[in-house]
Amino acid sequence: MQTIRPVPFTRVTLQDSFWAPRQHTNRDVTLPLMYDRLKETGRLDALRLDWKPGKEPVPHIFWESDVAKWLEAASYSLAVHYDPQLDALLDEVIALIALAQQSDGYLNVYFTVVKPQYRWLDLRDAHELYCAGHLMEAAVAHHAATGKRTLLEVLCRYADHIATVFGPEPGQKRGYCGHPEVELALVRLYRATGEERYLKLSQFFVDERGRLPLYFHGEQAARGGAPSYFSNPLSPSDRGYDPAYCQSHKPVREQTEVTGHAVRAMYLYSAMADLAGETGDGSLLGACRALWDHLTGRLMYVTGGIGSTEKNEGFTTDFDLPNAHAYCETCASIGLVFWAHRMLHLTGEGKYADVLERALYNNVVSGVSLDGRRFFYDNPLASSGSHHRRDWFSCACCPPNVARLLASLGQYVYSESAGGAAIHLYIQGSGTVDVASYTVKLHQSTQYPWDGHVRIRVEPQQPASFTLSLRVPGWCRAATLSVCGQAVPVEVQNGYARVDRLWHPDDLVELSLEMPVERVYADPRVEANLGCVALQRGPLVLCAEAADCGPGLAALALPRDVQLQAAYEPDLLGGVVSVTGRALRPVVPSTGGGSLYGTEPWTTEPVTFKAVPYAVWDNRLAGAMRVWLREA
Amino acid sequence: MQTIRPVPFTRVTLQDSFWAPRQHTNRDVTLPLMYDRLKETGRLDALRLDWKPGKEPVPHIFWESDVAKWLEAASYSLAVHYDPQLDALLDEVIALIALAQQSDGYLNVYFTVVKPQYRWLDLRDAHELYCAGHLMEAAVAHHAATGKRTLLEVLCRYADHIATVFGPEPGQKRGYCGHPEVELALVRLYRATGEERYLKLSQFFVDERGRLPLYFHGEQAARGGAPSYFSNPLSPSDRGYDPAYCQSHKPVREQTEVTGHAVRAMYLYSAMADLAGETGDGSLLGACRALWDHLTGRLMYVTGGIGSTEKNEGFTTDFDLPNAHAYCETCASIGLVFWAHRMLHLTGEGKYADVLERALYNNVVSGVSLDGRRFFYDNPLASSGSHHRRDWFSCACCPPNVARLLASLGQYVYSESAGGAAIHLYIQGSGTVDVASYTVKLHQSTQYPWDGHVRIRVEPQQPASFTLSLRVPGWCRAATLSVCGQAVPVEVQNGYARVDRLWHPDDLVELSLEMPVERVYADPRVEANLGCVALQRGPLVLCAEAADCGPGLAALALPRDVQLQAAYEPDLLGGVVSVTGRALRPVVPSTGGGSLYGTEPWTTEPVTFKAVPYAVWDNRLAGAMRVWLREA
Repeated sequence: MQTIRPVPFTRVTLQDSFWAPRQHTNRDVTLPLMYDRLKETGRLDALRLDWKPGKEPVPHIFWESDVAKWLEAASYSLAVHYDPQLDALLDEVIALIALAQQSDGYLNVYFTVVKPQYRWLDLRDAHELYCAGHLMEAAVAHHAATGKRTLLEVLCRYADHIATVFGPEPGQKRGYCGHPEVELALVRLYRATGEERYLKLSQFFVDERGRLPLYFHGEQAARGGAPSYFSNPLSPSDRGYDPAYCQSHKPVREQTEVTGHAVRAMYLYSAMADLAGETGDGSLLGACRALWDHLTGRLMYVTGGIGSTEKNEGFTTDFDLPNAHAYCETCASIGLVFWAHRMLHLTGEGKYADVLERALYNNVVSGVSLDGRRFFYDNPLASSGSHHRRDWFSCACCPPNVARLLASLGQYVYSESAGGAAIHLYIQGSGTVDVASYTVKLHQSTQYPWDGHVRIRVEPQQPASFTLSLRVPGWCRAATLSVCGQAVPVEVQNGYARVDRLWHPDDLVELSLEMPVERVYADPRVEANLGCVALQRGPLVLCAEAADCGPGLAALALPRDVQLQAAYEPDLLGGVVSVTGRALRPVVPSTGGGSLYGTEPWTTEPVTFKAVPYAVWDNRLAGAMRVWLREA
Repeated sequence: MQTIRPVPFTRVTLQDSFWAPRQHTNRDVTLPLMYDRLKETGRLDALRLDWKPGKEPVPHIFWESDVAKWLEAASYSLAVHYDPQLDALLDEVIALIALAQQSDGYLNVYFTVVKPQYRWLDLRDAHELYCAGHLMEAAVAHHAATGKRTLLEVLCRYADHIATVFGPEPGQKRGYCGHPEVELALVRLYRATGEERYLKLSQFFVDERGRLPLYFHGEQAARGGAPSYFSNPLSPSDRGYDPAYCQSHKPVREQTEVTGHAVRAMYLYSAMADLAGETGDGSLLGACRALWDHLTGRLMYVTGGIGSTEKNEGFTTDFDLPNAHAYCETCASIGLVFWAHRMLHLTGEGKYADVLERALYNNVVSGVSLDGRRFFYDNPLASSGSHHRRDWFSCACCPPNVARLLASLGQYVYSESAGGAAIHLYIQGSGTVDVASYTVKLHQSTQYPWDGHVRIRVEPQQPASFTLSLRVPGWCRAATLSVCGQAVPVEVQNGYARVDRLWHPDDLVELSLEMPVERVYADPRVEANLGCVALQRGPLVLCAEAADCGPGLAALALPRDVQLQAAYEPDLLGGVVSVTGRALRPVVPSTGGGSLYGTEPWTTEPVTFKAVPYAVWDNRLAGAMRVWLREA
């Protein structure tokens, strides 16, 4: 496959029953609701810089990032669905941001009004450059959506200021942020402005990361001994900090194992992939490949969730994938989508699209309720019934992250290159791709993910010769293909079937992906899933919920040979394909005086079992849930 | 069964290969080592009351209890194995204690030298009465062992002082200790001295417990707002305290469900049983019976461990019995032995002896290494290889608790009553029992717990008519009995087979308890053990250790129909019966590029499997361990 570029979401429409309603809800419900939250929690007013000691709430170090992701999401929405009120609201918020900018270009509420004496002195914990990065992403999105340069210019000035503070020259700081983000944002700023200095600054931050002596070790002294933002006040020393938490335990090119905080890792690896693409740096790509194999071969949940524990919001040891205590932060899976998308375009390999799809259709979309009003921060694979989405979080990174992802979802569907077009995701709707000097419109008709049959109408401006690459997902064991009614043998290379021909307007491609219910088994080194099976149909991982299966989900066992039926239920959870079958449930001993332990295995009784997509769990009555079921 | 009394350990000798070496090690290794620890950690010197602010270490509120339990254990040792040096050492420590006593009888280091202003003002957290209780138990033991009244008189004075402070009269405090212990100790003091006021004080504490308004809620005001000892300094309010933690959420007679901190619960229930026995209070016995059924039917591990979580060192919800994170504090199982022993003697029901035996042979004895030098605080039922016994603990309740239990173990073997004798535990050795006006010596010859054959030589002073009750353990499915060579039908009532006859010197009873390897299944509501089996042989729960089975214990599966062979291995772990068989282990996919998830179940390969008694785990090379194994 040649070098390919994503087709921007502005040239893609989604008209399916799975994603399009999510996008509408995101626009009509989530974005307005999120603005209200930003307002009522003080995140917007903090930009007025009128905080004084004693006043509540105290601006938090994260706050700009929440505002920025909302701005980014709203800009994406505006780009495809113009709304003058939203446009004006964005201008208002951007004016606040512009006023908060200092004369030297600096722009951070916390370190302007709360702790001005520590500006750039707590890179490890205080998220200063992280917030800057999110504001840059918002600026790029706003400029692209509206053509206005208001926010873009603010952020360019800030980036220019940052470039004076950080760098290899004498007097400059050789530091980098404890939470990667600015690195990928600077690449976006470079692409939006063409200013190479932003690319170079991103490179600097990535190259410095993990150099010894660890930059963070000197910060405390520079603060006169004051503890860092998240230090335990009882033990203010930096010595206990594990640099692997923020992927700075060694130079990034030497990193082969995924470590630490999952979102930090995904944002860093995304930037590494960006830089590999921009500069052709093979050592960065090599590190990305090794990290990818480690992540997906040893650390990823079947839902595309990553990060096993709340303790570090991140990774633990290989194959440690507990279900009920899985962390699987929504933001981490979104970060995985970002990274996978970049790896796909760097390599053209379908394995990256497989993981992108897995994360998107399961862990990511689980992050928001069907009504767009409630959010998961962590997405466990089993719940006793007490885990539910919430309206908002004091650390509110996930809700606006889902919002910006949904608003820009179209960008993951198609790619274009000089020699052809590729379809990565099957979503009813259309995309306009540029192939060499032609414009080609691709129309998908499909019930995907409920059905694996996809009709693609190819509409070049004029007859045109190019390759259409169609992804054959890794989960699919049998696919058939026809072009204009003629069966074509499906030869899958790197995850794609390719049709190379002279295309005429209204040529029809039909791809049929067999989509049976699959039983999925984990590597036996995953202790949590020993003796267990998960169900997957197409890209969707299924789960059993108490709402369908009653109590005692943990004890439910699926006989290995039981028949499972898939059926579309239009009235269930907005319309989903559910899977039913017979399972076995232990007969609970009659209560009273019984012994906990006996020498006979418990008896079982057959019960009806139903599974629904994990994507939509916890949208009914509160109850238990399980992805991995015992197998009898 | 008539009212029975335990035969004191001073009339019992143990000469078996399981317990006798433990007792010798306890005497020769553990007790001297523990004295050294008490000395070197400052616990003994603190009694000199010469602490001043700024001096390290600061005396801890628990310290007297550690000294007291060592004194108690050493006294038991002295009672059956006189050692003039130990006798003198005890006198020395007792002299220190006597000097620490204040003129009003008060005796507590912390509240004499560190926080004198809070004497009796932090009953909830500060363990003041708890320490008093342990000192009383030590005093009773020392007096019984040596005839000396030195410590007994100190503690009687202290108890008399306590009786002036606490009580129902005007001006007295209607409080009780956050950690029960003094209640059972006062009953012992009453029995040792005949002074009914100690019994009444115990009754007062038990009766007050859980009365509303909760006593503890008023303590903070009485301290002028100072937080209690274990309050979070950031939230000094008492409001967040859960009175169920210390079983004071309702009056004890209304408690039907076991709650809170496990050791606290066991010590309280033991006192309730004591008082039920002394006073004939049926409502206390009724509460004990309900609590017992709840504990053993829903909250007890197969090892006799209790307390599922470190968070409260205690109970969580019904059937919540995780294995790797089991807390199962050694002290809690010892407390269970105490309570079971009392319930057995109140009711004569073998179910209490069954639990006593289960706790003793598994969780309790696991608490100390074979060499007597290292101790478990918590006794999980699975370990990844990182859980090991330790030399000592800053909160060192468990080591001296094991020591006093082992030193007085003989008391659990026999009982006597006007009409007969009972044997509860089969341990080679002998006991001298008083039956009516006769003295009868009972000699056991047995390899128990390695073998279920027990020969009992009955040696009455003269021919005597009485009932000999022989426990038929709950784990035993087939027992045979013969008396003087004549087979006798085994009729088990309340857990005991009874032989009522005119006994002559040298009459021989032979009891044969079938002891196959049993597969044990947990109630299916125990989520942690779904699909799993434990192995038990006689009273011993077995476990698999990496030392025998290699890595990947979690993945090991025992086919339901596999044959298991038990064999005595004299050179293994001091001589144990191990169990071997064939198990299945998943074949780990060859490394590199593999996917974590696939649609085929993993393949397995047969491996040799060996299990050893849980009692002796972690006495070899560090490695993983599991009690509950997957069943294939």
